[in-house]
Amino acid sequence: MEDATVALLHAELSVAEHVIADQENIVAMSRQVEEAALRLLALQQPVARDLRTVVGAIHVAADIERMGALAAHVAGISRLRHPDCALPGDVRDRFTEMGEKAVRLARIAQEVLLSRDPEQAALLRDKDDAIDTEHRRLFTLLIDQQWQSSVCSAVDVALLGRYYERFADHAVEIGRRVVFEATGGLPQSKQMA
Amino acid sequence: MEDATVALLHAELSVAEHVIADQENIVAMSRQVEEAALRLLALQQPVARDLRTVVGAIHVAADIERMGALAAHVAGISRLRHPDCALPGDVRDRFTEMGEKAVRLARIAQEVLLSRDPEQAALLRDKDDAIDTEHRRLFTLLIDQQWQSSVCSAVDVALLGRYYERFADHAVEIGRRVVFEATGGLPQSKQMA
Repeated sequence: MEDATVALLHAELSVAEHVIADQENIVAMSRQVEEAALRLLALQQPVARDLRTVVGAIHVAADIERMGALAAHVAGISRLRHPDCALPGDVRDRFTEMGEKAVRLARIAQEVLLSRDPEQAALLRDKDDAIDTEHRRLFTLLIDQQWQSSVCSAVDVALLGRYYERFADHAVEIGRRVVFEATGGLPQSKQMA
Repeated sequence: MEDATVALLHAELSVAEHVIADQENIVAMSRQVEEAALRLLALQQPVARDLRTVVGAIHVAADIERMGALAAHVAGISRLRHPDCALPGDVRDRFTEMGEKAVRLARIAQEVLLSRDPEQAALLRDKDDAIDTEHRRLFTLLIDQQWQSSVCSAVDVALLGRYYERFADHAVEIGRRVVFEATGGLPQSKQMA
């Protein structure tokens, strides 16, 4: 998503193509995780916390795969509009901000996966709220007849906003899984996302 | 999604609210599936095809949960624009069509879950292509400067199109899982969705 945001902000075709091509590798890795998890379940027959960790890994791989798909969507819009920039000038700063926040969230999710620290995982939710706020501001701009650019741009911006928001949701979901594994408590999902 | 489409086409507030409220039940059922699957894995320690079926159920529950969320998004846009209709006249037929196709796809997915018939599951992919075609036609309309309505409408229509498309993708994903369970072959996902 970091690269996809660079591609988006600077209309960098080669970066966009790299992001799109890289998605295949993420899909392949996600399949490997699922195969490994099935093997572990069959051969080791884990229980309790170990079992939750293995099933959690299947979910987390699916989340990361979707995050890769969403980054590829951002890159896809950038490629589609090349050599123009997909973003009108007045929303560039918004996307710079959303991109930074989304990537920061993904990095925290990555750290949480390594640390397995439920308190750090809980932080993800607050950071996600910041992205939701950005996203709402973007929609206000699109909808309150202040929009100066084309309908085509508005559609791109609406979808791009959605992709960043969903990317952030998946990062939060990864944190939610880590809490679930640690506590065995029922994870609360962000239902309306 | 059938109800959400009624709410969307006819600006029926009570139907929209019912769809949105019902999402909670789908989330609760999805949690129950996951709990039951974890219990099965811990207590019965299934292997081979049984193991794939149990892990498959966890994925399918997640897909159905997302389908519920997407239907609630459609209903949410309908509620947001009430008492107006969120759809300008010239795209009503498109959404009638997309709604019917999406619901038909979900019903096939439901039948496939019961029949576990991989040949029937393969049919889902063709039906999904029909929705993708509708979705592309919708975007052509939005983007080729033929759009007669407001920017706000264009944004609604773009997001609605995306929600129907993703709903259909999840139905196909359910079919893909059934094939995986039957054959043990690596499922091919629709990577770019």
